[in-house]
Amino acid sequence: MKIGKQSWRTIWAGQPASGSMLPQQVCIIDQTGLPHQFRVVEIDSVRQMAEAIRNMQVRGAPLIGAAAAYGMALASLESDDEKHLQESARLLLASRPTAVNLRWALERMLERLLPVSPHLRCEYAWREAGCIADEDVVINHAIGQQGLNLLRELARGKSRRLNILTHCNAGWLATVDWGTALAPVYAAFDAGMDVHVWVDETRPRNQGASLTAWELAQHGIPFTVICDNAGGHLMQHGQVDCVIVGADRVTRTGDVCNKIGTYLKALAAFDNQIPFYVAVPTPTIDWRIESGVRDIPIEERDPREVTTISGLADDGTVRTLSLTPAGSMAANPAFDVTPARLVTGIITEHGCVTPNDLIRIHQEMKE
Amino acid sequence: MKIGKQSWRTIWAGQPASGSMLPQQVCIIDQTGLPHQFRVVEIDSVRQMAEAIRNMQVRGAPLIGAAAAYGMALASLESDDEKHLQESARLLLASRPTAVNLRWALERMLERLLPVSPHLRCEYAWREAGCIADEDVVINHAIGQQGLNLLRELARGKSRRLNILTHCNAGWLATVDWGTALAPVYAAFDAGMDVHVWVDETRPRNQGASLTAWELAQHGIPFTVICDNAGGHLMQHGQVDCVIVGADRVTRTGDVCNKIGTYLKALAAFDNQIPFYVAVPTPTIDWRIESGVRDIPIEERDPREVTTISGLADDGTVRTLSLTPAGSMAANPAFDVTPARLVTGIITEHGCVTPNDLIRIHQEMKE
Repeated sequence: MKIGKQSWRTIWAGQPASGSMLPQQVCIIDQTGLPHQFRVVEIDSVRQMAEAIRNMQVRGAPLIGAAAAYGMALASLESDDEKHLQESARLLLASRPTAVNLRWALERMLERLLPVSPHLRCEYAWREAGCIADEDVVINHAIGQQGLNLLRELARGKSRRLNILTHCNAGWLATVDWGTALAPVYAAFDAGMDVHVWVDETRPRNQGASLTAWELAQHGIPFTVICDNAGGHLMQHGQVDCVIVGADRVTRTGDVCNKIGTYLKALAAFDNQIPFYVAVPTPTIDWRIESGVRDIPIEERDPREVTTISGLADDGTVRTLSLTPAGSMAANPAFDVTPARLVTGIITEHGCVTPNDLIRIHQEMKE
Repeated sequence: MKIGKQSWRTIWAGQPASGSMLPQQVCIIDQTGLPHQFRVVEIDSVRQMAEAIRNMQVRGAPLIGAAAAYGMALASLESDDEKHLQESARLLLASRPTAVNLRWALERMLERLLPVSPHLRCEYAWREAGCIADEDVVINHAIGQQGLNLLRELARGKSRRLNILTHCNAGWLATVDWGTALAPVYAAFDAGMDVHVWVDETRPRNQGASLTAWELAQHGIPFTVICDNAGGHLMQHGQVDCVIVGADRVTRTGDVCNKIGTYLKALAAFDNQIPFYVAVPTPTIDWRIESGVRDIPIEERDPREVTTISGLADDGTVRTLSLTPAGSMAANPAFDVTPARLVTGIITEHGCVTPNDLIRIHQEMKE
């Protein structure tokens, strides 16, 4: 997608050093500075990549997958030894516990690298990581086209703009490009549809107010930032036509693990008979597990993400403020699970399926 | 309630000037500075009181009622003329549109003052405002005792502490003293029960993170601040035993208008079969209207409450930061309506009633 007039991805392999055919580092857009500071950071080691995932310089389930793959390429530069690759995969896997794409990408990398002779692993690793990144772009573009059909259907017969509510950031910043939840919005806008996005600010880390607002603004799509508390009220008053969110993991029964607060929006959509869609690439579906509430580990993050907040001061510096009385306890679960019964459809690169379709597909996979 | 070892109310009449029997100003705790700055402000005119209500130096439905009553006392100092009193009542009524206590208090003051001879109005006004404030304290104490019975019932047979979730601030800072939603919590704690409060931070103005956390800390009650997004997840995992909130207006059918986001918590409580209580003094019940979603005016506040946030900087100053990209649109509805079907009970000074009881009481009032 574009920032100003220039096309960007969220992650890419650096230039090869002189005398080498292979990149020596990975470049990322550092998302902790947005929307106030745009920075590209060079990642030189697998350790640094694990840290970038943990501290959310890169975030979003699909992007975490690609970042982990590139992390393995960096690991293979350090040593083509199997033990180092296995340890690197464990290090990367431990950086965030909830998104399944991380595990998926690491397993794919190890399956590709371990069978080949050590001196080939580094080259294979860069190629495979590149494939994972490229595939993510293709998949998300396809999700956009699938979602566009749904939005066209919703807009049929409406004389006013279509209002889409989204939670957190599942835009192009959460992926390599295009986004998941926002891919249909970009596709609709580019196709000339009159769309408007209600952007949940998404406390505690405000990925909506910072990242979603920023990328929509860069693309020129009309949006309005709201507090996470406001969506139910807007739905009660007919101001939301559909909800689209991304996911960090979808179970084979269609339970959806996504940013904390998603469940509350799903309840409100259900209560007001508003379609609730989840847009995910198929690698986000975890076929191994059944019950989201029971089986998905929910990351508990630092309470200081709740008790403090960062933003732009009048003097142009980014500062952090305390919000609570000194010594206050806080809890910070980062994700919740929306039961399948509240989900209208799951938009993948192959089409829109219901949770029941997923169960059927899983049966067919087993047969 | 106490701040440190000293007992306070949120509002009180100032000392009479020498040579006068009547107070010349009203004192309030300025709630815009909390939890970082504790300030008492003297209000000298009805205009200043209307401004203090509008900018939320005083807030909370019951306290707004008492503040409006004291505002009328200040008005009567300025002139005992009927026209001035009527205009003052209109000015105060326009300061916040949603809380019904404001109208209730103003109507009561006018009914008391207009029939008596003008030279008596000022004395009557101070006395009646004092009565309204004192009655609020008595009512809220009774709400606490009624709620205590419910909490004892919920705690029966539990071997661990009772977890109560609340939204916004309906503690003593929202009233003259004791609070509404928190009155049962104070009563339970003072009676030796093991209670813990999940405090929704309550964006955009963070009354939970600032006011509720502060007053619970002053009283020594264990609490944990959470983002507004987290409550549903905690309920899914059995970590919430009941929800208690206040209200700005309850319709005669039991629809509850309260701080934006309350509806989402009520949906989650219902979905997880957790009791959802609303604690209100009877003046908060608006017997004139039936449908909350249709008939209650919802205040739309300044979008800058969403796009910016205030807190305490490292250097001890209170600062304001921007959260969104420059030029972002934001919407800021301040309240939402929880349909009666999601409400387990309404705790008033007379006892706990269901929405159906309310409808019956209204029938009896008409007969």
